[in-house]
Amino acid sequence: MRRVGILGGMGPQATVLLMQKIIAATPAHDDADHIPLIVDQNTQVPSRLQWLLEGAGDDPGPVLAAMGLRLQAAGAEALAMPCNTAHHFAAQIISAVRVPMLEMIALSVAHARQLISGPGTVGILASPAVRRVGLFDAACKNHGLSAIYADDEPAMLAAIRSLKSVGATDAAKTTLIAASEDLLVRGATVQMIACTEFSLISDAVAPKAIVFDTLDRLVDAIIAFACSQSAGQKKAVF
Amino acid sequence: MRRVGILGGMGPQATVLLMQKIIAATPAHDDADHIPLIVDQNTQVPSRLQWLLEGAGDDPGPVLAAMGLRLQAAGAEALAMPCNTAHHFAAQIISAVRVPMLEMIALSVAHARQLISGPGTVGILASPAVRRVGLFDAACKNHGLSAIYADDEPAMLAAIRSLKSVGATDAAKTTLIAASEDLLVRGATVQMIACTEFSLISDAVAPKAIVFDTLDRLVDAIIAFACSQSAGQKKAVF
Repeated sequence: MRRVGILGGMGPQATVLLMQKIIAATPAHDDADHIPLIVDQNTQVPSRLQWLLEGAGDDPGPVLAAMGLRLQAAGAEALAMPCNTAHHFAAQIISAVRVPMLEMIALSVAHARQLISGPGTVGILASPAVRRVGLFDAACKNHGLSAIYADDEPAMLAAIRSLKSVGATDAAKTTLIAASEDLLVRGATVQMIACTEFSLISDAVAPKAIVFDTLDRLVDAIIAFACSQSAGQKKAVF
Repeated sequence: MRRVGILGGMGPQATVLLMQKIIAATPAHDDADHIPLIVDQNTQVPSRLQWLLEGAGDDPGPVLAAMGLRLQAAGAEALAMPCNTAHHFAAQIISAVRVPMLEMIALSVAHARQLISGPGTVGILASPAVRRVGLFDAACKNHGLSAIYADDEPAMLAAIRSLKSVGATDAAKTTLIAASEDLLVRGATVQMIACTEFSLISDAVAPKAIVFDTLDRLVDAIIAFACSQSAGQKKAVF
């Protein structure tokens, strides 16, 4: 099996959740049946939210590119990053390394495309930083879709910060449900959990919405890559 | 904070449990407060049980030493390995690297020493391989303690294999409770969960025994190392 490098620590709990999901999704009788990973649980990446929302702190891009190089040197044959917001810096990582990157944004928009017939709207449950940089916009447009984002930025930011500091709370769940209901009213029947902090409370969504977690798309891609035999093409996304 | 390298994947679920325990034990308000790790989730290490019990398969020692070197090259300032049985090969890892290794066996026996006054007996709830190689014997003897092991090897081995393949089951818990009760009858008031598969069901022990999990001793040592400021001594165990 091929080893996948994980740019992790953003946050650390989301990285652990990814690893758990990979184990749960892999049919296995013994250790050797499981997917080999090399995980950089780097809790010291400069804050993506601070950089993108406030223009303050250090640029996370060069740190993420260095992580990609380090994982490649450690034997990773592909890279994956369980943090939606950090995908703003994906191009910097990809240009620094030789191995392909399994891009969660592209994988997720392709999945949304399969769920929606014709032109349509995708609701994005993400951090305000994802909205500000329009992280899903280009990929959606390429697939004939339009992305709409949760409006209440202070509430979403507070929920994410709370998830990072104290874990799942009823208040965070209430915020996520309200955002999901709002996106549904605005026409987004198909929605994505597009923040790995929200992955920790991914059942807290509008009951009538069709919601998937971008992290699950990454899990599937990691398992498919690890179990495939070919060496893969340079820079291949899927 | 200093980055700790984890020789993981033995099994993968135990490595995830270690990471979860580290997160849970770290007071944190944001990602940056958490412990940085680089985790080699190497599911392809040759079977320790097969090598030690049957003399079959490939020697895990050189693979583990190579993992240590790879983690060191990736920036690890200390190593830790959430697998008791694999500590049979700890000397090979230590001799291959420059950075210190936080040795779970030594840490655990030192903790048992604190719990027992005078000479005493420590019960070891571990894989048959740990018993066969007497993994805890020398460290216990150095501390004036004697180690006794669970007797029913087929049952313990079946429980470990079941935990690796299907996770926690009532049958595995029944086996562990029986082993713990037996060790208690044989004089081991203080006992260790000394198999990271058993860490997944660590509450399944004799109610009257004083039981701790060797994995928790490793968690404490990792956090203490990561949060300490000095560069550490070469080969220092604690």
